[in-house]
Amino acid sequence: MNGNESTINLNVIRWDDRNSRLELLDQTRLPGEVVMLSCVTVQDAWDGISRLSVRGAPAIGIAAAYAVCLAFNPKDNISVGMAMQQVHAAIEHLATSRPTAVNLFWALDRMKAAANGTTTNDAAAIDSLHARLLEEARAIHSQDRELCESIGKFGAARLGLARRILTHCNAGALATGGNGTALAPIYEMHRCGIAVEVFADETRPLLQGARLTAWELMRAGVPVTVITDSMAGSVLRDGKVDAVIVGADRITARGDVANKIGTYPLAVLARYHQIPFFVAAPQSTFDLTMVYGSEIPIEQRSAKEVTAVSGWSKTENVPHVFNPAFDVTPAELVTAIITDLGVIEGPNEAKVRAALGSNLQKKDSDPWIQHG
Amino acid sequence: MNGNESTINLNVIRWDDRNSRLELLDQTRLPGEVVMLSCVTVQDAWDGISRLSVRGAPAIGIAAAYAVCLAFNPKDNISVGMAMQQVHAAIEHLATSRPTAVNLFWALDRMKAAANGTTTNDAAAIDSLHARLLEEARAIHSQDRELCESIGKFGAARLGLARRILTHCNAGALATGGNGTALAPIYEMHRCGIAVEVFADETRPLLQGARLTAWELMRAGVPVTVITDSMAGSVLRDGKVDAVIVGADRITARGDVANKIGTYPLAVLARYHQIPFFVAAPQSTFDLTMVYGSEIPIEQRSAKEVTAVSGWSKTENVPHVFNPAFDVTPAELVTAIITDLGVIEGPNEAKVRAALGSNLQKKDSDPWIQHG
Repeated sequence: MNGNESTINLNVIRWDDRNSRLELLDQTRLPGEVVMLSCVTVQDAWDGISRLSVRGAPAIGIAAAYAVCLAFNPKDNISVGMAMQQVHAAIEHLATSRPTAVNLFWALDRMKAAANGTTTNDAAAIDSLHARLLEEARAIHSQDRELCESIGKFGAARLGLARRILTHCNAGALATGGNGTALAPIYEMHRCGIAVEVFADETRPLLQGARLTAWELMRAGVPVTVITDSMAGSVLRDGKVDAVIVGADRITARGDVANKIGTYPLAVLARYHQIPFFVAAPQSTFDLTMVYGSEIPIEQRSAKEVTAVSGWSKTENVPHVFNPAFDVTPAELVTAIITDLGVIEGPNEAKVRAALGSNLQKKDSDPWIQHG
Repeated sequence: MNGNESTINLNVIRWDDRNSRLELLDQTRLPGEVVMLSCVTVQDAWDGISRLSVRGAPAIGIAAAYAVCLAFNPKDNISVGMAMQQVHAAIEHLATSRPTAVNLFWALDRMKAAANGTTTNDAAAIDSLHARLLEEARAIHSQDRELCESIGKFGAARLGLARRILTHCNAGALATGGNGTALAPIYEMHRCGIAVEVFADETRPLLQGARLTAWELMRAGVPVTVITDSMAGSVLRDGKVDAVIVGADRITARGDVANKIGTYPLAVLARYHQIPFFVAAPQSTFDLTMVYGSEIPIEQRSAKEVTAVSGWSKTENVPHVFNPAFDVTPAELVTAIITDLGVIEGPNEAKVRAALGSNLQKKDSDPWIQHG
């Protein structure tokens, strides 16, 4: 992005029409190698999501949507009934790839609804079913790009005079179909010529901040400084940061936020230092079936993610490790949630439900006018 | 330690009398390899301290004291004047190995005073000078063992019913001449048959928690769970911890504490969750020439320590990195400082000066009686 383009365009997720397959930018290999991972089967995509080749709540949803299109090949000589069975099996299987990001389930629900629109059983129906699925996946993808753009505009306005922004994990172009959630306002400010700079928490154990956020910000020409997660306290205390902004994997009706492990202590630190703490997320990240963050299932991941770098592999015994991938930040610690629909200030259940319930009307409103 | 031995005895620092050399347990290679690093010259020891083969404020002081004994060989045919010159040059050089831990300067001051006691110029004086230096280094070493023991007893009493302890970095046997500072009370409780368990922050960037604290606690049979630094917030919030205890690299007259980066945010989190936050350190870690923590020089270390694990070595550009090795926790966030002289509750300048100024009288008092 050199000042005028509005999209980062990293080709994080790409549907290869000619070969009917899903290509994912393999984020486990960044920043060292920029390589695509080809998914030919649903299982390939499941693996890609599970091992974090594609990650970030919105990107997981988009990848899973395309992955449903791998459930059957329209050139196969199978009945619509059989194809439908395979689609439903794929949806069910993909739903088990990761538990916390609600965008996954939201996208799969949309794919199920798209599939269920097909009822006839003639030969053309197979093509039509596949076309409908692909169309829905593409809609999810392109809509996410627009959601990011709205978040970018609302966020840039809400950040106001903040120029030095701290973020955690990666909620950027690599995590979405567009310019990101937490990073979208930063890209928007950068595009407008505002001298914004970023502190990126490295984000242990999988270093999404040091590897991914640093990589995409450097590529876009946004100044970025990597710190270990344990340095955020000093950086905030020393007055080096005007605002903290993070993405989200699931937000409940009262505004409790599940996000990458390390988000909650950052929210406590921001409150202690009286620095605003923002969460940026599209509609698809809200789960209004839950009120409290304690209801959100938190993924526990392998101990090896933590011990791999500390030399324990050379020893017989390894220490016990606790490795939750996410934590929950209560709404009380969130200054505002920046959504594609507007900014929810001091979130609570009434405000979240009001903002989310009225999305159609708000969609076309001026993005520079806040509500909440 | 199997319930009755009172010392962990890891041979962290050893003077090899036969070969007149200093041996350090190379902590950069733990837990994968348990190997000693031989220091024949002052520069060898300087390198060992600088690259963290030996680390932890008290251990740095002890290692530097022995390193002064490498300044000349009593068998060399040199004048006492020349030997003294080499001793003073060694002390000056060793003082540049690391800037933050005050124990280094405290130990070197003791070695300088020991050297200056020698004034004659006969041949035997060379032997006598070396013997005096070695005796002082050994005294610093064995006194530290006793300081740890006192801290262990005062700390175990002060921890009271706390059983689930969170610690950061390594302030254990590997960091001292005895059972550690922060870990001494834990070893003391374990020795008394109290079922204590530890959460160890991994402590990025150099993973002293995951590598060293986990290793020595496992070796001693104390249950330990490793977490990333970013997980401490969740662990405290979920009520899994009764107390936090850390070591210190330098404590000012008002009780501000410089310690491993990540200590300050932990103190903020402990306060937010109303969990007691303890600092354990011997007299030698106090620097009464300073009142405020902002006066403490904070070591900045290589960016590579942070980026080494994230694959940036394979790319042309690396991101900008900020890598302070320490942060400062203000006295207001410290519940109590546990010293070898007693417990300083709610530290402030009057209490710290009173506790430190009266050390000779307090030394023989009952360690189970607290003052402060």
